[in-house]
Amino acid sequence: MPDPRFYHRTGPIALARLAAMTGAELAPEIDGTRTIADVATLEDATSADVSFVSDRAYLTALAASQCGACFISADLASQAPKSRATLLVKDPRAAFAKAATALYPDTAPRWSTTTAIAADAEIAPDASIAVGAVVGAKAKIGARTKIGPNVVIGPGVIVGEDCIISANVTLVCCLIGSRVIVHPGVRIGQDGFGYYAAPSGPQKIPQLGRVLVHDDVEIGANCTVDRGALGDTVIGQGCKFDNLVQIGHNVVLGRGCILVAQSGISGSCTVGDGVMVGGQVGIAGHVTIGAGAQIAAKSGVMRDVAAKETVMGYPAKSIRDFWREIAALGRLIKRG
Amino acid sequence: MPDPRFYHRTGPIALARLAAMTGAELAPEIDGTRTIADVATLEDATSADVSFVSDRAYLTALAASQCGACFISADLASQAPKSRATLLVKDPRAAFAKAATALYPDTAPRWSTTTAIAADAEIAPDASIAVGAVVGAKAKIGARTKIGPNVVIGPGVIVGEDCIISANVTLVCCLIGSRVIVHPGVRIGQDGFGYYAAPSGPQKIPQLGRVLVHDDVEIGANCTVDRGALGDTVIGQGCKFDNLVQIGHNVVLGRGCILVAQSGISGSCTVGDGVMVGGQVGIAGHVTIGAGAQIAAKSGVMRDVAAKETVMGYPAKSIRDFWREIAALGRLIKRG
Amino acid sequence: MPDPRFYHRTGPIALARLAAMTGAELAPEIDGTRTIADVATLEDATSADVSFVSDRAYLTALAASQCGACFISADLASQAPKSRATLLVKDPRAAFAKAATALYPDTAPRWSTTTAIAADAEIAPDASIAVGAVVGAKAKIGARTKIGPNVVIGPGVIVGEDCIISANVTLVCCLIGSRVIVHPGVRIGQDGFGYYAAPSGPQKIPQLGRVLVHDDVEIGANCTVDRGALGDTVIGQGCKFDNLVQIGHNVVLGRGCILVAQSGISGSCTVGDGVMVGGQVGIAGHVTIGAGAQIAAKSGVMRDVAAKETVMGYPAKSIRDFWREIAALGRLIKRG
Repeated sequence: MPDPRFYHRTGPIALARLAAMTGAELAPEIDGTRTIADVATLEDATSADVSFVSDRAYLTALAASQCGACFISADLASQAPKSRATLLVKDPRAAFAKAATALYPDTAPRWSTTTAIAADAEIAPDASIAVGAVVGAKAKIGARTKIGPNVVIGPGVIVGEDCIISANVTLVCCLIGSRVIVHPGVRIGQDGFGYYAAPSGPQKIPQLGRVLVHDDVEIGANCTVDRGALGDTVIGQGCKFDNLVQIGHNVVLGRGCILVAQSGISGSCTVGDGVMVGGQVGIAGHVTIGAGAQIAAKSGVMRDVAAKETVMGYPAKSIRDFWREIAALGRLIKRG
Repeated sequence: MPDPRFYHRTGPIALARLAAMTGAELAPEIDGTRTIADVATLEDATSADVSFVSDRAYLTALAASQCGACFISADLASQAPKSRATLLVKDPRAAFAKAATALYPDTAPRWSTTTAIAADAEIAPDASIAVGAVVGAKAKIGARTKIGPNVVIGPGVIVGEDCIISANVTLVCCLIGSRVIVHPGVRIGQDGFGYYAAPSGPQKIPQLGRVLVHDDVEIGANCTVDRGALGDTVIGQGCKFDNLVQIGHNVVLGRGCILVAQSGISGSCTVGDGVMVGGQVGIAGHVTIGAGAQIAAKSGVMRDVAAKETVMGYPAKSIRDFWREIAALGRLIKRG
Repeated sequence: MPDPRFYHRTGPIALARLAAMTGAELAPEIDGTRTIADVATLEDATSADVSFVSDRAYLTALAASQCGACFISADLASQAPKSRATLLVKDPRAAFAKAATALYPDTAPRWSTTTAIAADAEIAPDASIAVGAVVGAKAKIGARTKIGPNVVIGPGVIVGEDCIISANVTLVCCLIGSRVIVHPGVRIGQDGFGYYAAPSGPQKIPQLGRVLVHDDVEIGANCTVDRGALGDTVIGQGCKFDNLVQIGHNVVLGRGCILVAQSGISGSCTVGDGVMVGGQVGIAGHVTIGAGAQIAAKSGVMRDVAAKETVMGYPAKSIRDFWREIAALGRLIKRG
């Protein structure tokens, strides 16, 4: 469920209205006056939540889900369990996005026009907030943490102890651990990049998750870390980012990963402990990188990488194959 | 003509003085006391403007141009129409840059040292300007638009209705449509990257254009969009940018383009409607991408891409050729 | 020696205590009560400084060094001159980092919580500091320089004459020349990316150097330039950076280099005068690029490039070989 510290939900929606606003067809045996209170993934959903199935791969999760209602396409619905309200619709992801928009019509942080440091922010007595910094409502700043000039910290954000949040940083919709160093110009917690296709062009899927930054993380200047769509983007304990690194929504990084400058990890990747990511590396969405893997600079990773494997190239392959390929190309040129 | 909302022009310059300051030779039949009031492209120029021809390809445009004067090299001048004042010079682009510098000696936005929100800014009563934001002289903020903390909006900038301009953003020399979402740390409207070669090193060409951002655009965190050199950089209706995207000066994007994180489009590219640009893609300058084209992640595009074509690789080729190449390389390694 | 304008050193440390805190073994003939006042490179060290040797390659520098003490591993120590205090340790770089941390426990800039422009900052009467800008203690701003809104200038920073520091920029631990243009969102002088491996994960090496930006430099929006670890990162006179460029610690750029958008130069590279670096180029650490070299867009440079050489590709090779390779691949596909 979206964290109420960051997101303001509107009242429940009756299933009949939900069907009408999304163009879905409600099975006739379902009571249309039943209400839905929230959106959730199949895994997290309760009987008060609506979820969605966009792909055959999620049918197992649907069978195990406690969701009260579910958007699903007709071809998949025939294979789905009958135990819950199904909302038949052509594009379940689009319908879910519309439901989320109805329940959370305004996900932008709310800022004061006059007060730099909210009266109800909890700031440790020995924390320091530099001139020009803005701290939103109910945010918490831990002991000995230093907030730099012109930093903006959103409502509900928590920053732990002994952190350094450098100048001109923006933190929203995130929880930051202790001993975290955030360099100037970093952006954490803004919307992830999620759209569905519509005749009028790409339409926004509300981004209702958070970013969790664990202890001892260091994040380089002008990096960007998007929050989860639903659920969280997670930066594991002790990760170190160089400058201008991009982390997409719902990425989960293990402990002690090293990300060199200008690398980018696309949405929903899972990265194990101690992974080394070279400069300007790109990793495609939904890829899993095993613990201890190393990805050479400038590689483009398009599929899973095994634990402790070293890969290089575009598309990335084992580093041995990469260098064999380079050698073969060299011979090819000589032959002419 | 440079937009007077953003640029402050000094008085007119006599042709003789223009020739002297640029090392140009004025044809003897031309009256050196005639004045030039402004700089312009060949297409936009009036009889009060000076323009330039740096390449044979522009001779047709020169023939059709209304320009009052024109910097041109001796070899091209012999092929040019005689109907207007020609200023013979070795490097017409450098001479034009010098003329532009003389007419616009100071293109940096003018900021108050004391007033955060200019008294003559027009801010809709239901717009909200968060604490720490700066709004320059004569800027306009539309109805229901929300400006985040520590945002800087330059003199003359217009932001439409229902926009969200997130924290720590900088907007100068630009016009923003309605329902535009700008994420934290975005920079729109700063100088493009334009220089001419001189014995003392690269010299700056004044950047006198704007950025036009159409309705329903979303721009990810820490993106950069440079303004046009002359004329405009244009972001079409409904375009969506992920984080850390770079747009060079005078790029024109159609409607509904999707640009994934860390992609970059070099100056003067033209991109059709509905183009998909993958993460970390680079597109060289002056390239045209047809409507509906798709560019796979990490590609380096060095020439035009046809409408609906899908390309991949470095240099980018048709995706079919890319994968055939990868397969051929695989066989090559096996052969040894 | 770290610049006292930026770094606050704690009192001297006795050799015995230094050995204890780093797990080093002090040669029995050395007086453990002798003190060390500072950390330094072998080249810069005086008899009051501790330095380190992490690699056989530094033994010559050690022989010539004036350092008062030196962390070194046992296998290298046997080849080292006996004239100075050696601290035997498994990982000399880690030990040095611990010594640096003890001498400089707090390298973060110190900010006022209430005063935007420090009373002891020296600001030229005709400089202008826009609303919302923060200027730290003892910073100096030169004649006619314009500081934009919400800029943050750290303690001790010097900005020369006729500079334009655009909105939302952060400058710390740096010295900026004259006629320098810094576009919005640039970050100069934050910590470089330096760690040593420890059982508990990567540990920070204190970054105690500076950034020197020479005259006539232009730095594009949202670029990042890290300060040196020890010693300086140097941007030579007349260099021009496009947007989103990354410069690692201790990079030294010559005069008049052109760096196109999203390129990145890793730590300790040396780049000669007039080098052209294309968009999205990456250069590996410790590489030397000769004067006048050209690096085509998107190249990945993994070894030295000779003066005036043009390279392209990943890994980068001579541009002639690159295109021969592309042609050979084309033939290969046709053959099938």
